[in-house]
Amino acid sequence: MVLEQFVDIMRPAIEKELQGTLDLHLSKSLPELYGMLAYHMGWEGEGAGPEAQGKRIRPLLVLLCAESAGGDWRCALPAAAAVELIHNFSLIHDDIQDRSELRRGRPTVWAKWGVAQAINAGDLMFSLAHLSVLRLRESCAENFVIEAVQLLQKACVHLTEGQYMDMSYETRREITLDEYWPMVAGKTASLLATSTRLGALVAGCEVNRQEAFWDYGYSLGLAFQAWDDYLGVWGDPSVTGKSIESDLLTGKKSLPVVYGLSQRGKFARRWLEGQIRVDEVAQLAQWLKEEGAQEFTRATAEGLTNQALKSLNRAASKGAAGDALYELTKMLLQRDN
Amino acid sequence: MVLEQFVDIMRPAIEKELQGTLDLHLSKSLPELYGMLAYHMGWEGEGAGPEAQGKRIRPLLVLLCAESAGGDWRCALPAAAAVELIHNFSLIHDDIQDRSELRRGRPTVWAKWGVAQAINAGDLMFSLAHLSVLRLRESCAENFVIEAVQLLQKACVHLTEGQYMDMSYETRREITLDEYWPMVAGKTASLLATSTRLGALVAGCEVNRQEAFWDYGYSLGLAFQAWDDYLGVWGDPSVTGKSIESDLLTGKKSLPVVYGLSQRGKFARRWLEGQIRVDEVAQLAQWLKEEGAQEFTRATAEGLTNQALKSLNRAASKGAAGDALYELTKMLLQRDN
Repeated sequence: MVLEQFVDIMRPAIEKELQGTLDLHLSKSLPELYGMLAYHMGWEGEGAGPEAQGKRIRPLLVLLCAESAGGDWRCALPAAAAVELIHNFSLIHDDIQDRSELRRGRPTVWAKWGVAQAINAGDLMFSLAHLSVLRLRESCAENFVIEAVQLLQKACVHLTEGQYMDMSYETRREITLDEYWPMVAGKTASLLATSTRLGALVAGCEVNRQEAFWDYGYSLGLAFQAWDDYLGVWGDPSVTGKSIESDLLTGKKSLPVVYGLSQRGKFARRWLEGQIRVDEVAQLAQWLKEEGAQEFTRATAEGLTNQALKSLNRAASKGAAGDALYELTKMLLQRDN
Repeated sequence: MVLEQFVDIMRPAIEKELQGTLDLHLSKSLPELYGMLAYHMGWEGEGAGPEAQGKRIRPLLVLLCAESAGGDWRCALPAAAAVELIHNFSLIHDDIQDRSELRRGRPTVWAKWGVAQAINAGDLMFSLAHLSVLRLRESCAENFVIEAVQLLQKACVHLTEGQYMDMSYETRREITLDEYWPMVAGKTASLLATSTRLGALVAGCEVNRQEAFWDYGYSLGLAFQAWDDYLGVWGDPSVTGKSIESDLLTGKKSLPVVYGLSQRGKFARRWLEGQIRVDEVAQLAQWLKEEGAQEFTRATAEGLTNQALKSLNRAASKGAAGDALYELTKMLLQRDN
């Protein structure tokens, strides 16, 4: 449980760094605007607290990678805050795009303040992320700071490309695996890969090793999403904390669904007929299982996790922080929420 | 007409730099997404062309300031493209927030592709802006590049703060001048000041001179908005190209309105009663004029323009490019659209 010890030390430091970014740059004369961001980050308002803050996986990855690559994790805090702010900017805008009224059991920003203010709050969070990473100047050489800014901006381009694909798939009943993976790469893997590489960058690794850390985060991101998709069909809603709705109800083109469609069996026939009803969900999940989608999704997530661990090995992550990364990687796949 | 000669050379270079940014970073496998940005920039789709592209004032300011500060304007092109992309990102999101269906006579991005895709297209434009400024590496020292990134991000924070104020004022019938100016500073002056300062930065000016260029752009931005507000009430809609609606109809808290309210006369009494009808607009514009709002707005715009020219003088802008800046500054106030 070496991971837990790191989390206990790093989590408060991450929250402090995040709050510092807001305090430093945001005009105190605009308490309501500040309040929107603080609410979304889980610090203020009804239901505030650790539950509302999420797991902060991305900043933890930055810090653990920095430490395991031989750096001092404290120097990587501005980068850690930056990736978490980018993640949260994208959540604020995602919620508007998906018309989701709840996130982690609380009303979303747009549900509370309206679409117009929520778009703007997301834009502000985005800018703050990039101001945060610039604080690396205090501990890093200038060329490394510029590299970090560039990595982060490229991740944002990939994020919006992935989001574009995701939204354009909504208007279709069917997509292929070749269309699924670039969407997940953009939406999830790219920012995780950026997180792990930023850690290596701040630690001063040469490019080859930075790339190994990137590969680690990238595979981890794909594995994470594959497993998320698994839970979206076969997870227990009371454990995942997601709404009672199975991914089968929302029409999400998740990995099991995309695989199931390729099998052209009972599942595909029913799916292509249109919207699934609540009373059909159990039957469709069963058909998917019988047609191999459960086994395929699990095997894919496991294969990607092994690939991630191999890259982590190649990155020569060291010490207790390296052990914590192994633990985190395995935990993400064994999680039931 | 030295300005015109610079515009003739610089405009094509600006468009090329802008298009280069999109070509360089955006996946060619997503032509529709690329198309949204190219449409908004006025390069593609129905009604594309110079009219749809706008004046590109901000990038012109970057280049003219760089040249007049003793630099080579070509080196400043990445910064010029960046400010224009930031401006356009904010327009895409503004149009959603205001529910504006037309911009420069063409359907807005959200009106064509829906709100969700338009939010994402704006986010992408935002990221591309910041990738663009990083290309300054090719001609600038690293510490200058980091300064440029920081300037740009701070402008974005101010932009979102100004936008927040603007939107929160919409729910009120009255605001004061003390509330008006910070909103305009955030929404308009900050990005113009960033543009002029970026020019000076790229030219290698020391901080004092950079600040003089900043002050120039800042006053220019305030003057620009004051004059825009003047035209919004007393301009000829057939010339301004804005919709037939006077700012008095939309309920915009523009400078003449805010001043008029402070006078507590006929205009204020009617305004505070609620929504103005079309057949009342001429009478209200007349009352505003009688109560001194026209004279106040004109004098304010002139005073700010003089302040801008003074700062430009202090910035010791030189040569033909310096002359062009004087010309541009005066032209912005004499414009009738």
